[in-house]
Amino acid sequence: MKHLFFDDYSEGAHPAILEHIMNNNNGQERGYGYDSYSQKAENLIRKEISSTNADVYFLPNGTQINFTVIAAMLRSHEGVIAPTSAHINVHECGAIEATGHKIIAIESANGKLTPAHVEQAFAKHHDEHTVKPKVVYLTQATETGTTYSLTEFEDVANYARSKGLLVYLDGARLAMAIANEKNGITLKDITRLVDAFYIGGTKNGGMYGEAVVIINPELQKDFRYHIKQRGGLMAKGRFIALQFERFFGKDQLWFELGKLVNQKAQKLYQGLVKVGIEFENAPNGNQLFPILNNKLITELQKEYGFYVWQNGSERSTCRLTCSWATPDTAINDFIQDTRNLINKL
Amino acid sequence: MKHLFFDDYSEGAHPAILEHIMNNNNGQERGYGYDSYSQKAENLIRKEISSTNADVYFLPNGTQINFTVIAAMLRSHEGVIAPTSAHINVHECGAIEATGHKIIAIESANGKLTPAHVEQAFAKHHDEHTVKPKVVYLTQATETGTTYSLTEFEDVANYARSKGLLVYLDGARLAMAIANEKNGITLKDITRLVDAFYIGGTKNGGMYGEAVVIINPELQKDFRYHIKQRGGLMAKGRFIALQFERFFGKDQLWFELGKLVNQKAQKLYQGLVKVGIEFENAPNGNQLFPILNNKLITELQKEYGFYVWQNGSERSTCRLTCSWATPDTAINDFIQDTRNLINKL
Amino acid sequence: MKHLFFDDYSEGAHPAILEHIMNNNNGQERGYGYDSYSQKAENLIRKEISSTNADVYFLPNGTQINFTVIAAMLRSHEGVIAPTSAHINVHECGAIEATGHKIIAIESANGKLTPAHVEQAFAKHHDEHTVKPKVVYLTQATETGTTYSLTEFEDVANYARSKGLLVYLDGARLAMAIANEKNGITLKDITRLVDAFYIGGTKNGGMYGEAVVIINPELQKDFRYHIKQRGGLMAKGRFIALQFERFFGKDQLWFELGKLVNQKAQKLYQGLVKVGIEFENAPNGNQLFPILNNKLITELQKEYGFYVWQNGSERSTCRLTCSWATPDTAINDFIQDTRNLINKL
Amino acid sequence: MKHLFFDDYSEGAHPAILEHIMNNNNGQERGYGYDSYSQKAENLIRKEISSTNADVYFLPNGTQINFTVIAAMLRSHEGVIAPTSAHINVHECGAIEATGHKIIAIESANGKLTPAHVEQAFAKHHDEHTVKPKVVYLTQATETGTTYSLTEFEDVANYARSKGLLVYLDGARLAMAIANEKNGITLKDITRLVDAFYIGGTKNGGMYGEAVVIINPELQKDFRYHIKQRGGLMAKGRFIALQFERFFGKDQLWFELGKLVNQKAQKLYQGLVKVGIEFENAPNGNQLFPILNNKLITELQKEYGFYVWQNGSERSTCRLTCSWATPDTAINDFIQDTRNLINKL
Repeated sequence: MKHLFFDDYSEGAHPAILEHIMNNNNGQERGYGYDSYSQKAENLIRKEISSTNADVYFLPNGTQINFTVIAAMLRSHEGVIAPTSAHINVHECGAIEATGHKIIAIESANGKLTPAHVEQAFAKHHDEHTVKPKVVYLTQATETGTTYSLTEFEDVANYARSKGLLVYLDGARLAMAIANEKNGITLKDITRLVDAFYIGGTKNGGMYGEAVVIINPELQKDFRYHIKQRGGLMAKGRFIALQFERFFGKDQLWFELGKLVNQKAQKLYQGLVKVGIEFENAPNGNQLFPILNNKLITELQKEYGFYVWQNGSERSTCRLTCSWATPDTAINDFIQDTRNLINKL
Repeated sequence: MKHLFFDDYSEGAHPAILEHIMNNNNGQERGYGYDSYSQKAENLIRKEISSTNADVYFLPNGTQINFTVIAAMLRSHEGVIAPTSAHINVHECGAIEATGHKIIAIESANGKLTPAHVEQAFAKHHDEHTVKPKVVYLTQATETGTTYSLTEFEDVANYARSKGLLVYLDGARLAMAIANEKNGITLKDITRLVDAFYIGGTKNGGMYGEAVVIINPELQKDFRYHIKQRGGLMAKGRFIALQFERFFGKDQLWFELGKLVNQKAQKLYQGLVKVGIEFENAPNGNQLFPILNNKLITELQKEYGFYVWQNGSERSTCRLTCSWATPDTAINDFIQDTRNLINKL
Repeated sequence: MKHLFFDDYSEGAHPAILEHIMNNNNGQERGYGYDSYSQKAENLIRKEISSTNADVYFLPNGTQINFTVIAAMLRSHEGVIAPTSAHINVHECGAIEATGHKIIAIESANGKLTPAHVEQAFAKHHDEHTVKPKVVYLTQATETGTTYSLTEFEDVANYARSKGLLVYLDGARLAMAIANEKNGITLKDITRLVDAFYIGGTKNGGMYGEAVVIINPELQKDFRYHIKQRGGLMAKGRFIALQFERFFGKDQLWFELGKLVNQKAQKLYQGLVKVGIEFENAPNGNQLFPILNNKLITELQKEYGFYVWQNGSERSTCRLTCSWATPDTAINDFIQDTRNLINKL
Repeated sequence: MKHLFFDDYSEGAHPAILEHIMNNNNGQERGYGYDSYSQKAENLIRKEISSTNADVYFLPNGTQINFTVIAAMLRSHEGVIAPTSAHINVHECGAIEATGHKIIAIESANGKLTPAHVEQAFAKHHDEHTVKPKVVYLTQATETGTTYSLTEFEDVANYARSKGLLVYLDGARLAMAIANEKNGITLKDITRLVDAFYIGGTKNGGMYGEAVVIINPELQKDFRYHIKQRGGLMAKGRFIALQFERFFGKDQLWFELGKLVNQKAQKLYQGLVKVGIEFENAPNGNQLFPILNNKLITELQKEYGFYVWQNGSERSTCRLTCSWATPDTAINDFIQDTRNLINKL
């Protein structure tokens, strides 16, 4: 195999992250998130989002964060509105339901929610024969590679709040969405518009762990109980904190890696367009969705790893994912091999 | 108001049911389903389904039975396949999810499942990133008034079993579906094709309570624990048992009431067809879905209670439900008033 | 067998209850608790407790009410304080835990809780490594036959509230405790001191069903969702309501039956004391706990049903339960037979 | 502060662990535990326990493993037997209950379970009014610092299995218990006697993560679903695996660190005994429970961090915990300071 474009977690951690851990391994610290590195990382994030009152926690992974935050937001009879294609609905093995809550799944062609979608949920959920909508789950960037513009995000978040809903953002690939200037969304915008969100680290060069930001004061209360009960309280809390201290330190590594990976994706996209490949849409982040001839797919998969996203009889939509570590040679090779195969087939 | 056609539980209990309770109220009996009336009623049902090994229990209502049986069938990572319109998916306030399990909801235009639907569920649920399909939930008659023919039922049940699934039937309106001879399905057929089902009493003239039949020996084991844990174990178990002793006693009241209500529905249907009303489809049981002019609806609702099922700009689909107690005069009046209003409007 | 003293649910329903059901069976009513009988019964109870703002619901049984109310009171990280011997801790098959909540079980010799017990729970539950105490569960009368005096009840309830806890009372045998004048507690006192409680019907001559009273406005909100989700919403709500309409109607049947059963228990107690039987304590309601010679037990159990509560090598504590229907002849026979057996053994 | 003896997770990771991660960070690997390092680490553990059929998984922390394994072992009506002082009962914020299961807590003075304790659980749990015992939870070393000898462990494990129970071992401090030769228990013994256990890494020099070993074939089936659903499936699985590859590599680091920490604890113990300190018992691993004069505690806590475990009016039992990184100087200083304070006070 020449290279794997499967996903953005096949690589290890960014060297700067590992180096920072190595340099701060020694010495005793209080456990369970009360260490000095956690304090520093929390403060860096608070500064970045211009919110001195936000609570920040470091948990091992995104699925765990999703069910911990959502279960903390809901009483037993309340549900969470999400697009049918949402990660919590299709790729977390019923983790939300395992906490006792229904996902109110709404069809959305592009994986994004609009005020109309939220309204649709309420139209079907208005008395005790159905669960009560209480949270709206948004993702930026979404499972299907799309992103919200600032206006779109404001529309759905404000509408949801006007209906008494809490707004939660899954930010597994938030760095790529923030780096995408077309969206025009900053961390400060998100902080203003949601009750809680998480800042993805793993897919952006981290080793493990993500940072949860809790804005809503009601939700802040007792949130450590929820972390503990759902298995997210790490005894040696310093190690995830150290990663985020590095991410949001002086050279703004987290933002830089987001830009870097988007550039790599753009380079691959532009190269493939030049050799005649069509796409579902231009990439909004680090994921590309080219529509490839099935024979071409078979040949390419001999040398490259990537997923077929949607099977077609002649042509199928594929997913190619770049990461901060994708070598330029891999990108160039893939474009070149595609060109050669097209000519040959 | 002249009459309510809202549903089949607006009436009280059939007099013969109440009389049987009254006649057997005295005397001491063991609690929690170990009384002599429960034994008799269980045996009558076992005889009716020709299964000496089936376990029979009497629980207060259908929602409770649905989540008790389904939760007993599933380990925490397993889910239940159901049509999107299934009662458990849209009218039980997330009760299944509250037991920790995801409903794998499959779109089905008529509320029935086919082998293709089950296959579709497996196509999207094949590894640990999604729940594992383990149960298929069928309803006879369905929420939308449709019914399975024997062949249709055999097809989906056998296919599900061939894939290792357990089959569960919600029989809230089973009496009406059994009474419908076009379906050609008997209680014995159901017993042969499912792992568990319940025989609805409340909607067929009962006071409260339904009978759960557990066929699968693995599920029989410890089932009383599940009943107790989910709140379905009644101290004075005799009173639901007495209703089913009466239902399945000599004069076959349960079957007779199913026939009776279907005849009433047919009479109303035929009468409305004659005055020119169109229908979604001919009634399969006690529910009618006429497509009425919106002005006609407004006028009719001044004298009759019924639901608008699907709003349209000019005409809307409505639901009229008959019960064992619907008076012939109410049926005649409704037809007559409809005719008069059509002429007037 | 001459008579069963096992429990207070081995008898059928009081004839006046059945008669009232029979007389009000006809006619159409709205389903799911929106019927006119439910309104009447709710109002009678509101009047009885002098609380126009209380919400009243009719659910099928006590276990179901316990987990429905407690789960509605708790967020996922919160727990309920209860004595180790509490029904929810030892006789409901983990129903509370099945809703996701821990019971904070506190040892109490007599099954009652004091402020010191509540304090003890807080001493061990003060950070996120344990659940957060949020509800205190009291029973009147308790599992072990003891009752709270008004002062005792005020002490624990007021202390619990001063610590931010909600107070919930399980009233399965509340009629007997109210009828016991030594306690000096009225329904109005309870209403003033708790956030929610239920009024037991089944053990006091009812057919099935109990009345839940929700005092706390926060808990009232959305409570119907919890009833539905936990399987307690009955389609034909009128039938439990009719029982409580009768219970709290003109002749105060519920109170009268509580007095009646206590008198029966006193008669049995006095008779047994006279023939030399010792007791754990004088009966506070309808349960007696005589300490009987093991040989005597063996002989008595040939003619009478009752439980051995605590095995001893020579003498064992037994439980005899009277009900509204226990015939005087059965009481006299039991005393007489005991006397005869004592003389013979 | 001179040194913290609070716990064994206040230090960072052992340098050899970090170095191994650093050296194997580069290169693409499949995600979610399908990487080559996971395979290597799994094989090293399988070799160590002489079980080619065991399944090994790497999860972020112990609390998460406990509820993932126990919930995978139980159907909804089943419970887990544990000593009252068990970590799952008192320090995991109701995490087991949050998966829907009751802990059957049995009083045990020393935190260990015997066949008599298991028998006691069955005596109180024999019908559907209580949960059904299905798993026994053991800890080696226990919360209170005690350890099972091989005979004790065989007794309780074999008895539990003879009653149809599954046996699960929480091995947070397993390295210290294995290193304690008095116990005479090897990883192979444990493998033979339990259905599942976990090998603690964090408290023995790891950075984060523990290794779960599933022996029982029934439990192996679908276990990855449970890991995913409960939030334990790490995208970059390589990083916990690398730690265990190092732990169980050539120089047997995991075993050596267990020995090392026990030696440190012994040194501290011997030194304190010499200056006249009494202990609850001789240390079985890395935890010491000295009984100290309350004035002495006050003075010592000015320079050293440690917990008061059990308050007394004059003397209190304290807990001192050593780790692989506790410097000899800290041990010597603590002994010397204690001697000086005793003379002074």
